[in-house]
Amino acid sequence: MVQETLTVKGMSCGHCVSSVEGSVGELSGVESVKVVLDKGQVEVSYNENELNLGKIKEVIEDQGYDVV
Amino acid sequence: MVQETLTVKGMSCGHCVSSVEGSVGELSGVESVKVVLDKGQVEVSYNENELNLGKIKEVIEDQGYDVV
Repeated sequence: MVQETLTVKGMSCGHCVSSVEGSVGELSGVESVKVVLDKGQVEVSYNENELNLGKIKEVIEDQGYDVV
Repeated sequence: MVQETLTVKGMSCGHCVSSVEGSVGELSGVESVKVVLDKGQVEVSYNENELNLGKIKEVIEDQGYDVV
């Protein structure tokens, strides 16, 4: 299990939190995901044997946000 | 039919637009509703025999925004 903190631009409200947490949380291999809205950060724990960071970034960007 | 423009605080993204337009648009008597995000405004046309402005404000506030 690894823990990563991503910086994400464009998350501005509770709906955005739900979109990001919902889409990342559905990925197989994700143990936990939490958006810290006022820091523009996404904290995610995942099993590196099942999932890689590129896929996590991809689903966040698919929701319309920029991972920086 | 009357046209009103409300100033609403807290709308910050496309999800907010959908929430406000969706909830107001479902009200019986509303002819059209449009959020202008960068102005923080909601333009609504409605039949004043079916609906009053207080009810429109109420559903916007129920979504978590402040009508000023």
